[in-house]
Amino acid sequence: MKPDGTVVESWGDIDTAILPRSATKPIQALPFVESGAVERFGLGVEHVALACASHNGEPRHVETVRAWLAKVGSSEADLECGAHAPRLPTSVEALIRGNATYTNAFNNCSGKHSGFVSTAQHLGEPVGGYVKYDHPVQRRLREVMSDLTGLDADAMPYGTDGCGIPTLAVPLKSLARAMANMAEPSRLSAGRAAAATRIRAAMNAEPFMVAGTGRFCTRINGALGGVAQVKTGAEGVFCAMLPTLGLGVAIKIWDGAGRASEVAMAALLDRLGVLPAGQRDEILQPPVKNVVGLLVGEMRPAKSWLG
Amino acid sequence: MKPDGTVVESWGDIDTAILPRSATKPIQALPFVESGAVERFGLGVEHVALACASHNGEPRHVETVRAWLAKVGSSEADLECGAHAPRLPTSVEALIRGNATYTNAFNNCSGKHSGFVSTAQHLGEPVGGYVKYDHPVQRRLREVMSDLTGLDADAMPYGTDGCGIPTLAVPLKSLARAMANMAEPSRLSAGRAAAATRIRAAMNAEPFMVAGTGRFCTRINGALGGVAQVKTGAEGVFCAMLPTLGLGVAIKIWDGAGRASEVAMAALLDRLGVLPAGQRDEILQPPVKNVVGLLVGEMRPAKSWLG
Repeated sequence: MKPDGTVVESWGDIDTAILPRSATKPIQALPFVESGAVERFGLGVEHVALACASHNGEPRHVETVRAWLAKVGSSEADLECGAHAPRLPTSVEALIRGNATYTNAFNNCSGKHSGFVSTAQHLGEPVGGYVKYDHPVQRRLREVMSDLTGLDADAMPYGTDGCGIPTLAVPLKSLARAMANMAEPSRLSAGRAAAATRIRAAMNAEPFMVAGTGRFCTRINGALGGVAQVKTGAEGVFCAMLPTLGLGVAIKIWDGAGRASEVAMAALLDRLGVLPAGQRDEILQPPVKNVVGLLVGEMRPAKSWLG
Repeated sequence: MKPDGTVVESWGDIDTAILPRSATKPIQALPFVESGAVERFGLGVEHVALACASHNGEPRHVETVRAWLAKVGSSEADLECGAHAPRLPTSVEALIRGNATYTNAFNNCSGKHSGFVSTAQHLGEPVGGYVKYDHPVQRRLREVMSDLTGLDADAMPYGTDGCGIPTLAVPLKSLARAMANMAEPSRLSAGRAAAATRIRAAMNAEPFMVAGTGRFCTRINGALGGVAQVKTGAEGVFCAMLPTLGLGVAIKIWDGAGRASEVAMAALLDRLGVLPAGQRDEILQPPVKNVVGLLVGEMRPAKSWLG
């Protein structure tokens, strides 16, 4: 998809509204970066990357979130995302052995929520209730979504995301258009365009912060440098920004299969010619190993899908 | 599908060979029950159910496997399935707090492998190498698969299953036919028909042993009594035996999504009129809750799929 809404290529139904979930986090980071909160609180590239993250809750993620919130005069008690166990078994084991438990900072969305809290603090808004539809934080997210999709986000149906904020229902083609405007932001205001460029740069500079050990987003954002930025969303959503091509990509696997969305994204990136030659095969056809570590298969896109 | 191979209803491609994985465990339990090993070693209904299981590795599963192997003069060191962590966070935590680690008995396939070991012991065959394609244990599985599908299992391509045994590639329609012959075994030899009936009864009598806490297989096999027996397989496979209707069902979700296979199975069972009225809604449209426990959605089959 191009920034003006021209469809370059599509497969399946791109008109039905879907819930983009965490795949829009880079877009949701725009008001945070635009507001000046990053400078005001002395935050860096790693915090901008964390604001776009669905992270593993590894020690570096959790510690960075805690230190960040202290800088803005808050604490993880202000995060309204709830707590869930970290993703990696090693992290779970470390918590149990330390007789500790997971807290809000471990939530995969804690960076995004820290961005929300920081922006509210910076603008002198009440922090409590920032997940509610009518809170200024959420109103700004809708203004940004309207700007990037060319639709009226206030008229979009919405669900409640895993972390408690409204998740706006958008047609897949509009989500791809929003990603294209992130990738090639010349249609946006100067301030917003600069913020989009900064957010993309942060995702490439700190790929670990966007996801973590073993994760597709971390691997791709690290391997592809400035050529692409990708972000997963729950229930089989995947988005990409392709600044050198001036394109945006949005994928939704209808049954919610996240693994399939990674395979589809890899195939699309390959089709667009942006995969590094040396890593092409392992990215395109990741191995499947069994319990004793034997290679028993590989994942790959259906031939018919690539047409 | 009827036992004679008549297709009652189908959706999508039923001719391409798929890997049925653990969905064939009830079939793979036939030689174990037919051999007389159950009586020889004083085993019961719970062991027959475990032989059909992809279990959670909860204490009752693990302890039953260990006691079973002791009865046949073996131990879990003889299991060639490998070890993986138990499925439930509470089981993982208990292991860590007890400074213990998971062993072969925790493998979700440990019951099936114990059945293999028991049969080999009973028949005086070498136990070592029972996962290999040419071992008598695996040859018997192919003989059974030929009998139930009406195909030549020795000619089937095969992959290596998660637990190390060959998994035979069969067309979805042939898998459904095999399940129909399990459900309504009048075309089988008397001994095999009796074993099929015993296996189905064990899955209903000990539904916990087939899977465990919170699992779809346990819930359905417990709720549906003698009317249906269901079994999941990795990568989006699900099978059902419907003795009162004389039908077999096989489902494969092409991208491997296990959750979608449960939704599809629930929809098919409903279409066949076998879901208990009081539990119909919760089985058909399971809730989706977010991190803080808020109801944010539900799963359901696509309307188009049910035609």
